Amino acid sequence: MENYLQNITGGGIKTQNKRVGARTVKFGRPIYIIGHAAVAGKKEGQGPLGDSFDIVCDDPYFAQKSWEKAESELQRQALSLAVRKSGLAERDIQCVFGGDLLNQCIGTSFNMRGFDIPFFGLYGACSTMAESLALCAAYVDGGFAEKAAAVTSSHFCTAERQYRQPLAYGAQRTPTAQWTATAAGAAVLSSGGQGPRVTMHTTGKILDMGINDTNNMGGAMAPAAYDTLSAFFTDTDTAPEDYDLILTGDLAKVGSQVLRDLFSQDGVTLGNNYNDCGLMLYDTEKQDVHAGGSGCGCSACVLTGHILNGMRGGRWSKVLFAATGALMSPISSQQGETIPAICHAILIEA
Amino acid sequence: MENYLQNITGGGIKTQNKRVGARTVKFGRPIYIIGHAAVAGKKEGQGPLGDSFDIVCDDPYFAQKSWEKAESELQRQALSLAVRKSGLAERDIQCVFGGDLLNQCIGTSFNMRGFDIPFFGLYGACSTMAESLALCAAYVDGGFAEKAAAVTSSHFCTAERQYRQPLAYGAQRTPTAQWTATAAGAAVLSSGGQGPRVTMHTTGKILDMGINDTNNMGGAMAPAAYDTLSAFFTDTDTAPEDYDLILTGDLAKVGSQVLRDLFSQDGVTLGNNYNDCGLMLYDTEKQDVHAGGSGCGCSACVLTGHILNGMRGGRWSKVLFAATGALMSPISSQQGETIPAICHAILIEA
Repeated sequence: MENYLQNITGGGIKTQNKRVGARTVKFGRPIYIIGHAAVAGKKEGQGPLGDSFDIVCDDPYFAQKSWEKAESELQRQALSLAVRKSGLAERDIQCVFGGDLLNQCIGTSFNMRGFDIPFFGLYGACSTMAESLALCAAYVDGGFAEKAAAVTSSHFCTAERQYRQPLAYGAQRTPTAQWTATAAGAAVLSSGGQGPRVTMHTTGKILDMGINDTNNMGGAMAPAAYDTLSAFFTDTDTAPEDYDLILTGDLAKVGSQVLRDLFSQDGVTLGNNYNDCGLMLYDTEKQDVHAGGSGCGCSACVLTGHILNGMRGGRWSKVLFAATGALMSPISSQQGETIPAICHAILIEA
Repeated sequence: MENYLQNITGGGIKTQNKRVGARTVKFGRPIYIIGHAAVAGKKEGQGPLGDSFDIVCDDPYFAQKSWEKAESELQRQALSLAVRKSGLAERDIQCVFGGDLLNQCIGTSFNMRGFDIPFFGLYGACSTMAESLALCAAYVDGGFAEKAAAVTSSHFCTAERQYRQPLAYGAQRTPTAQWTATAAGAAVLSSGGQGPRVTMHTTGKILDMGINDTNNMGGAMAPAAYDTLSAFFTDTDTAPEDYDLILTGDLAKVGSQVLRDLFSQDGVTLGNNYNDCGLMLYDTEKQDVHAGGSGCGCSACVLTGHILNGMRGGRWSKVLFAATGALMSPISSQQGETIPAICHAILIEA
C-alpha cells in the first residue's frame, strides 16, 4: 500500500501521484477537519443522536416563509457555526463545496447567496456530503485552498412534495420507505491544524441493478455501496475489521442488510463495526420512520455531530464514511427508468 | 504575478501554494486538453458554427423514446467521441466531472450509468462546463488522476417543459428570452500530452442583483460574469486586451451589453476580443432565438467545437472562458425569489 508513492513531473513541477489502486486516492498530507456543525429538526432532535447536534429547531419553517427557504436557513446555520467553531471568520474560507436534493439545488444556492465565498455546486443526491468532503479535501491537498468547507442539507417537507406527494395528501408509506431527515451538516477543512483528518477517498461509479421502486432506495443504493467499499478494501489491501467504524449513508434497514448479504457472498463479514446513518438517526421502532432515515442531511448531521464528536473524544480513530445517493428523478421514474445509484467514500482518521 | 509561488509544508510533503490573489489559482503544471468533442441538434447545426461540431443530429429524440433520454444520448456521444479523439479507451479515464440543467441532473446520471468510470456530479446551471473543467483540471493537477474528463449538455425540449411551459402550449417568448441549445460538449484532460492547456481558474461567487424576470437570465447573470472576470484581472494583474478572446457563456444580447456597461463604469473597455457563446451559436437575426442561446450545452459545444478547434489551428492562443449560470428553479421563482447567478472562469492557452 505504501509503494504507490511516485513523483511524476510535468511542466517542471514535481507532483506526487496520489492514486492507490484503481479508484482510491491518498492525500499527500493530512487534511484536518478543524470545525464542524450539525443542525437538525424536531424529530431528529428527539432521536437517539439528539444530544450530538449543535442546534435543534422545533419549527419546521425555521422562521422562514416556505420549507425551501427553511432548508437554506438550516444550511446557513450549519455552515456559519462550523466556521465559527473552527475559530475562523467567513473571509478566511476560500471556497465552499455543497449541494442538496432540491431541483436546481436551490437549498444550497440560496444559502450561499448570503455568503461572500467562492462556491462549487455539486449534485450527488444523498452521497453529497462524502462527495463534497472528497473534492474539498482534494482541492486543499492540491494547494488550491488552505481553508475550505463542505455543506449539505435535506428537509422532510421539501423532499416529500418534490419527490413523492404533497404532505397534505397524507399518502401511505410502504415498509421499505425511508424518512428524509430535516438536517444539515457542515465541515471546515484545512491544510494545517488539528482534529480528525481526511486521509483517503474512493470515487463512486454509477450502478443500476434494475430496481424501479422509488420507495426502496436502500435496496437500489446497496450495490453502489458494495462496489465502492469493495474497491476501497482492494485498493488499500485492507479488510472491514481494520476500521473502527464503517458507516454507510442512508441504506437504512433494507439496504444495510443487502450490503451485508453482498459482502457475505464474498466471504466477508461486516461485523459490529458496521453501521448506517439511516439506522442511527432515528429510533426506528418508536419514531415511525419505517426503514430508517435518508436525505443528504441524514449522513451529514450524523457525521458532523455524533461521529466527529466521538472521534474527538477518542471513541473511534479510523472511520470509513461511505455516503450513498439514488440518482433518479420523478420524471425518470415516470418514464419507466430504474434507479441509478452512487457511493462516495472517505477515510477519516483521528 | 509570478511571486506567488511558495512551497508550503504539511505532514512532511511539500505542496506548492497555487493561489494567485484572492480567488484565482494557477495550476502547477499545464493540464492538456488532449481530446474534445461537440454534438449538436438540427438548429445548432444550421447556425454559424455548424461546421465545427463533430456530430449534428436532425432528430430531436436522438433515436430515443423521450427528450430526457435524448439528452443523455447526446451527452454519451460527446463523451465517447472525446475519449476516442484523445486516443484513449474508456478504461483510461480515471474519473468524469459533469452535470446538466435537469432536475436531479438526470441527463448526466443516466448517461454516466453506461460508462464504467468513477463520477463526480456537479450543478452549476449554465456555468457547468467551466466548473467541470476547473475541478477536473485541479483534480489532475493535484495528482489524483492522470486522465479525467468533463462533460455537460442541455436540450431545448427538456429545458422548456421543465423551466417554462410544455412546448405544446406554444407560449410566446419575450424579446429578452434565450433559446436553450440542444447540444453537448466533452473534453479529456491529461497531466501530459499536447494541445491547448488549462492553466488557471477563478471560482465564482453567487451574486443576486434582484432581477426576478426568468425571461431575462442574461441580465441576471451579467453581474456574476463582471465579478469573476474582474477578480481574474485583479488577481493576475492583467487587462482584457491581454487575451486573444474573452468568452462569456450565454449572456446573449442583453447580458453581454450589461457586462460591457459594467466594465465601462470602471473605465475598462471590452473590445473586439470579447464575445459570448450565446451570441455565437445562432444567427440571432435569422434563427428566431430572440436574445441568443443558453443552456449548459451552449457554452460547452461552442468551446469544444469552434474554440478548441480554432486554438489548435493557431487562431487564438489565450482564451479566457467564463461560463455563467442562473441558479433559480421554478419553485424559487414561484415563491417570489430573485435570481442568484454564478460565473466560473478558466484560462486556456495554446
